[in-house]
Amino acid sequence: MTESTQGSTDRFGLEVLPPEECDRLLARGTIGRIAFVAAGEPVIVPVNYRYHRGAIVLRTAQGEKLDAAGLAAPCAFEIDHWDETTRQGWSVLVKGTMEEVYRPDEVAELETLGVRPWSNPAARHIWIRIRPDEISGRRLR
Amino acid sequence: MTESTQGSTDRFGLEVLPPEECDRLLARGTIGRIAFVAAGEPVIVPVNYRYHRGAIVLRTAQGEKLDAAGLAAPCAFEIDHWDETTRQGWSVLVKGTMEEVYRPDEVAELETLGVRPWSNPAARHIWIRIRPDEISGRRLR
Repeated sequence: MTESTQGSTDRFGLEVLPPEECDRLLARGTIGRIAFVAAGEPVIVPVNYRYHRGAIVLRTAQGEKLDAAGLAAPCAFEIDHWDETTRQGWSVLVKGTMEEVYRPDEVAELETLGVRPWSNPAARHIWIRIRPDEISGRRLR
Repeated sequence: MTESTQGSTDRFGLEVLPPEECDRLLARGTIGRIAFVAAGEPVIVPVNYRYHRGAIVLRTAQGEKLDAAGLAAPCAFEIDHWDETTRQGWSVLVKGTMEEVYRPDEVAELETLGVRPWSNPAARHIWIRIRPDEISGRRLR
């Protein structure tokens, strides 16, 4: 009964990824990009992340853009993979809202996930969670 | 005299890429991501692009999100590269505004660049240009 979505394409000829495939790709990835609006302008920031309990979680530092502008505002999170040789690839887009994780039990759980920002991990002690309102994925092949 | 920018780092310990290095990376790339606000929410869309005369150029189709929501509004364009093994990489962020390229001589010039969208190239006959207001880059190593 999944055939209706499994093989469907959008009006631009891209294969629409079923929800379980988006979940699988999100769970496998560790690097994505967040877009949010700062001072009226969209910005894109690469981040190390994990997909945990159906949400994107990542660490940031006090004073970073994510911290200053992104909280409680709509944001987008994206992962993708492209093969220049075959011109094939996929992308997954998550829409949601960033929130800081405060609860000690939740923070303790996130600390066990091994999310280690590549840059300045010591200062990035603030946990951010994006609960998806919408997840969509496309594959090109 | 370029040493002041060449080796500088931001407050998060990331190397700040000088403008000429951002230019070089933008000129070398062919796949990037655009973020813009559609219906009040940021979205991220992967695109095939070229860096031509100091601007990002790409092709889109009538009715695509880029066409519908992105024009004349602030947008961000990003490219990056990450090596999971060494945990090194870089990103370049362009801030600007999307505009449609109408002038026949400009369109003719863009048609010579070999920008061929991987998906649905036949329908993507609208040329979009992002003239950068700001370009910034970071390297982690």
